[in-house]
Amino acid sequence: MRPDQRRSNELRPIKITKDYIKHAEGSVLIEIGDTKVICTASIEDKVPPFMRGQGKGWITAEYSMLPRATETRNIRESSKGKLSGRTMEIQRLIGRALRSVVDLQRLGEKTVWLDCDVIQADGGTRTASITGAFVAMVDALGKLKEKNGWEKLPIIDFLAATSVGIVNDELVLDLAYVEDSSAEVDMNIVMTGKGQFVEVQGTGEESPFSSEQLTGLLELGKKGIDELVSKQKEVLSDWVLFIGGEA
Amino acid sequence: MRPDQRRSNELRPIKITKDYIKHAEGSVLIEIGDTKVICTASIEDKVPPFMRGQGKGWITAEYSMLPRATETRNIRESSKGKLSGRTMEIQRLIGRALRSVVDLQRLGEKTVWLDCDVIQADGGTRTASITGAFVAMVDALGKLKEKNGWEKLPIIDFLAATSVGIVNDELVLDLAYVEDSSAEVDMNIVMTGKGQFVEVQGTGEESPFSSEQLTGLLELGKKGIDELVSKQKEVLSDWVLFIGGEA
Amino acid sequence: MRPDQRRSNELRPIKITKDYIKHAEGSVLIEIGDTKVICTASIEDKVPPFMRGQGKGWITAEYSMLPRATETRNIRESSKGKLSGRTMEIQRLIGRALRSVVDLQRLGEKTVWLDCDVIQADGGTRTASITGAFVAMVDALGKLKEKNGWEKLPIIDFLAATSVGIVNDELVLDLAYVEDSSAEVDMNIVMTGKGQFVEVQGTGEESPFSSEQLTGLLELGKKGIDELVSKQKEVLSDWVLFIGGEA
Amino acid sequence: MRPDQRRSNELRPIKITKDYIKHAEGSVLIEIGDTKVICTASIEDKVPPFMRGQGKGWITAEYSMLPRATETRNIRESSKGKLSGRTMEIQRLIGRALRSVVDLQRLGEKTVWLDCDVIQADGGTRTASITGAFVAMVDALGKLKEKNGWEKLPIIDFLAATSVGIVNDELVLDLAYVEDSSAEVDMNIVMTGKGQFVEVQGTGEESPFSSEQLTGLLELGKKGIDELVSKQKEVLSDWVLFIGGEA
Amino acid sequence: MRPDQRRSNELRPIKITKDYIKHAEGSVLIEIGDTKVICTASIEDKVPPFMRGQGKGWITAEYSMLPRATETRNIRESSKGKLSGRTMEIQRLIGRALRSVVDLQRLGEKTVWLDCDVIQADGGTRTASITGAFVAMVDALGKLKEKNGWEKLPIIDFLAATSVGIVNDELVLDLAYVEDSSAEVDMNIVMTGKGQFVEVQGTGEESPFSSEQLTGLLELGKKGIDELVSKQKEVLSDWVLFIGGEA
Amino acid sequence: MRPDQRRSNELRPIKITKDYIKHAEGSVLIEIGDTKVICTASIEDKVPPFMRGQGKGWITAEYSMLPRATETRNIRESSKGKLSGRTMEIQRLIGRALRSVVDLQRLGEKTVWLDCDVIQADGGTRTASITGAFVAMVDALGKLKEKNGWEKLPIIDFLAATSVGIVNDELVLDLAYVEDSSAEVDMNIVMTGKGQFVEVQGTGEESPFSSEQLTGLLELGKKGIDELVSKQKEVLSDWVLFIGGEA
Repeated sequence: MRPDQRRSNELRPIKITKDYIKHAEGSVLIEIGDTKVICTASIEDKVPPFMRGQGKGWITAEYSMLPRATETRNIRESSKGKLSGRTMEIQRLIGRALRSVVDLQRLGEKTVWLDCDVIQADGGTRTASITGAFVAMVDALGKLKEKNGWEKLPIIDFLAATSVGIVNDELVLDLAYVEDSSAEVDMNIVMTGKGQFVEVQGTGEESPFSSEQLTGLLELGKKGIDELVSKQKEVLSDWVLFIGGEA
Repeated sequence: MRPDQRRSNELRPIKITKDYIKHAEGSVLIEIGDTKVICTASIEDKVPPFMRGQGKGWITAEYSMLPRATETRNIRESSKGKLSGRTMEIQRLIGRALRSVVDLQRLGEKTVWLDCDVIQADGGTRTASITGAFVAMVDALGKLKEKNGWEKLPIIDFLAATSVGIVNDELVLDLAYVEDSSAEVDMNIVMTGKGQFVEVQGTGEESPFSSEQLTGLLELGKKGIDELVSKQKEVLSDWVLFIGGEA
Repeated sequence: MRPDQRRSNELRPIKITKDYIKHAEGSVLIEIGDTKVICTASIEDKVPPFMRGQGKGWITAEYSMLPRATETRNIRESSKGKLSGRTMEIQRLIGRALRSVVDLQRLGEKTVWLDCDVIQADGGTRTASITGAFVAMVDALGKLKEKNGWEKLPIIDFLAATSVGIVNDELVLDLAYVEDSSAEVDMNIVMTGKGQFVEVQGTGEESPFSSEQLTGLLELGKKGIDELVSKQKEVLSDWVLFIGGEA
Repeated sequence: MRPDQRRSNELRPIKITKDYIKHAEGSVLIEIGDTKVICTASIEDKVPPFMRGQGKGWITAEYSMLPRATETRNIRESSKGKLSGRTMEIQRLIGRALRSVVDLQRLGEKTVWLDCDVIQADGGTRTASITGAFVAMVDALGKLKEKNGWEKLPIIDFLAATSVGIVNDELVLDLAYVEDSSAEVDMNIVMTGKGQFVEVQGTGEESPFSSEQLTGLLELGKKGIDELVSKQKEVLSDWVLFIGGEA
Repeated sequence: MRPDQRRSNELRPIKITKDYIKHAEGSVLIEIGDTKVICTASIEDKVPPFMRGQGKGWITAEYSMLPRATETRNIRESSKGKLSGRTMEIQRLIGRALRSVVDLQRLGEKTVWLDCDVIQADGGTRTASITGAFVAMVDALGKLKEKNGWEKLPIIDFLAATSVGIVNDELVLDLAYVEDSSAEVDMNIVMTGKGQFVEVQGTGEESPFSSEQLTGLLELGKKGIDELVSKQKEVLSDWVLFIGGEA
Repeated sequence: MRPDQRRSNELRPIKITKDYIKHAEGSVLIEIGDTKVICTASIEDKVPPFMRGQGKGWITAEYSMLPRATETRNIRESSKGKLSGRTMEIQRLIGRALRSVVDLQRLGEKTVWLDCDVIQADGGTRTASITGAFVAMVDALGKLKEKNGWEKLPIIDFLAATSVGIVNDELVLDLAYVEDSSAEVDMNIVMTGKGQFVEVQGTGEESPFSSEQLTGLLELGKKGIDELVSKQKEVLSDWVLFIGGEA
């Protein structure tokens, strides 16, 4: 039995509130158990210098935590004057994951900024950020579709993420912080709506793992992501029909 | 008539939600119209180096805005690697204001960190931060009172803040962003529950102002702050009796 | 009686030496008691990016102290690699104050840089900086008038600043460091030659203050600033007739 | 056929030169094809603050590239004043991977610094760094064994890393730069001498991948790592018998 | 004939004003022609970490220019957030030069901070800084001698510096800015009162120079430094008898 | 007798390996005794902003040490976030020295970047860098000559550097680290192939030196540099005939 009484293959309760911040083109508050992240999508009519003149768009992500999102207060990265390695790693992951389902050609010379700000943390903040940022991005592009008279969104597939791991020798889905901090193996999985892998990042710093364990973890992840995508489809019901097509 | 149909001496709707973040000793979401700030109070059992060994506590504040709290996206100060002058000025103001109503001797060698994170901005974010941070701080110290068996809180008086200004030659209370950006004179006032001034910061960059106008603005501010303190007393009803006494 | 035998409403001796630095378009050494500040005005034929293409000019200020301007040596901000909040706050104040009396339209697409470097500090360095920078700026613009054949300077009014405060329950004008460090209330006032307020920044961190006290402080400040403006008019006698007009 | 005529499951030529830098406790030059990395291991008799007093050691890694290790010159991170996200991600990976095979308890309160400096880059620099750093670390700990009279090294197992990927729909082992830059899927694998996974990091930004493809890539990686470990055992023949045991 | 009518072996007018800044233990304004530098000496009762516990003192120097010390305004290094290579090079030179004539053993565990702030620049700011800092340092140590009842100052010899160079094929002493900027060879020389070299830094970036030219430059430098030391002895007449002895 | 059995006027063994890094236009590994530096020359088809539009080229240098190039590990400057004064001083010296023998007019609007990375340090790293960087630069420009059909290289003369010093009252050539760290006087000399001085930097922080000693040191330096230039001519035999001419 897990600390919060969940079965090993059970996600925490999910809640996605759209239009959470009035100024942003797209915004959600995503809650996965006690993990709460504000995700906003901002659309800018230009691309970074390395992308200019190619007629293609760009997706970029930033991630941060409020100082008191955690059990003990963290020093702000703005006060320290630099981003931690952890933050950089996470925002690179979010951006890469989201880009994998966007048709940058169809998007055109625009940048979508995805800001993921964790206001309360209880494990799985990076995967919640990906799952929430996808919704914010679709919503922002949906508004653009209306305005620009696009036939479809420049989105190839749905995308969501979750964590899996080995805790006390048991394979579990969607680790809360208390599980995560004692896990032997910790893995983040990002998948498309069609069940293809976009990212697999597993680490066994505490204890290396076998091929069989890896296979088990990937199956558990797939189950969780299927449920997350269903949830996304509910929230994005207006846009479901306009997502898909070749990259 | 003001853009949002308010009278010149009318505050925007106020909402203060306590216990908004589970990890913090004290936390609120304060909403003043469309301005929304998460304020947390974190208690640390030591003081900064310059205060050590005096048996006294310290109050310090940090302020930030989410990138998309505003109409157009702001670059994160953590990405820029430094705090702007505006941020520094605001967090110095919040800290100074809050310290003025705390009996640092009675607090003892502890630091209260007040984090004010604006998740949606529509004018008056610094004054909303002060008003909200006061509530978060009292709540955190209230829990400490229970734990430490203090007779009273080390809080001398209530404290709230609002803005006043001159817009189109008219004196107005609690400026929303659209008013603020076209104001001739802009003033932030911090007052105690007993109606004494703690901070008065008025600036007439666009147009200097007379003594009579200044007097009018201060009266308008006092009216607004009285209402904000009433609201604070409702929300902090458990602690009202334990606030007061000499510094 | 005050530590330096002044009456409560008496300024310290004032000395303004023009043309102090040969390279600058305008420069003064201003001495207010033992506080000594070198103020230079540099004119640049362009404006910062956010002002381009509007046909208007810009005024910006920087403030610093030599490490040994103070009783104990301060670490240089260039060595620390960042400006303190205090420095940022002061330079924002100086810039804002000076802009309030410049007709940016008439100035045209130019930037006036005002550098205020404290070589010896004894209280009131920010107000001495404003008072001295005004003189340096007028002098620099005077040279530009000759060169450009302007009829008038793009200066609307005179501008000076002083501090007032409450020390041992007494209202005093122009606080020296020893008074400032023990003041209950500390207020900086910036006024125009016509006696209008440009900035009022009062803080009662040690002890909040009443409306009556505030009124008294403002009157004291007005008296001091009238004297400072008289001094400025002496030093700027060549330009007095060319100052004034609508913004 | 691959650009350098290798079969899809063939590693590039490997060369490991020990004792490459005279000052370091352990050092190697590792060459994997045209990728060349200097790896040094430095032993310090203390641990970072967060590890103090636990009687355990710590392993930490730093990674850098010479500016002209690459086709076009890169700006130094020391000149830019900050580490890139890529660098941080890589040095976190190297440290985590190496720690997984060290018995920190047996190591005692020491830090092993692993410096991986790429002097020539042609793909796979992070995996070459891990494979080389393992050798440098064992060599440094071997000298410590002699000095301290340890019976065994505090090393649980061998450790090596390689990359695999999908290029033009074909699964390939040990990607050179030209392959890496056009790969649909890119994966780094770190394994122990006993064939357990320590890290699996696969990314399909260009094209998501199926379970079957993932399985194929993992097998290919295992084959490569087995060969790399054989090479390590040759070079570390003096210490092979002293490696192993429980963490 | 030189631009300012000097002979090739003639120094510019020298003026040294002692006790220029009231707070510092030692301070001078040194003027060499139009070059003006404020030099202060601050004594701190501790040494930097790398010197602790040796019973010896330390001398360290910092150098800066006011933004408008020069013909065109320079951006402050505090605003840029870092020191330029030129500044670092100069302050390392000043510190090294001054240390060469101090008996650090006799000084004891104290640090002398020498701050050299150029308020007006016209060539030779680094050599004026050394010459002026020596005076400020002696004055500060003189006061310490009185207080501590030392028999002698911990100063081994006088120390001054000047520049020499080749301009239009002619060897000249003490280059003003207009000469310096067109010199083929530029050399800074630091010498003791007894005529020994402490630093010789010559650079022929524009044109390499021969042994004969080098010899001529060194002689010219010696002549200038003899005159500077005479000037120092006048200003420091109270302490001349207490300077000297073995290091 | 010197620690490594050399005579006082004897250089350490020299080895210059060309084409050490495959990507760079020019590259060498230079070994002077146990000091080993990788020098690369990179050619960029533009010049820095301050040189634009003059039809002339630019030479710039960067210098760094691997953390474990030294006896004890050094913290990386990229981790510290800034370059040390020592590094800046050295890279300014290298750039200035190399520029003195390049005809920037004939080079045209190109920048040559010289990267000197010390992989093992045993004294004299800055002079080895200059000597090695010259070879890398000539090699890179040689390739450009072929490509552009230049008649001659834009190189006026050969250039090399060495250190001399006074150790235990004896004048010695090419100091190894153990000598350098106990030297009374330390001097770096850069000379052209024709025996003219480009840089002379001597410092007697530990003990000032006389004219006679200076003359002796310069002669010793000349002898060493003659030998270094002979070595350069061997390695650069293909280009010797194409070097020379007026600047």
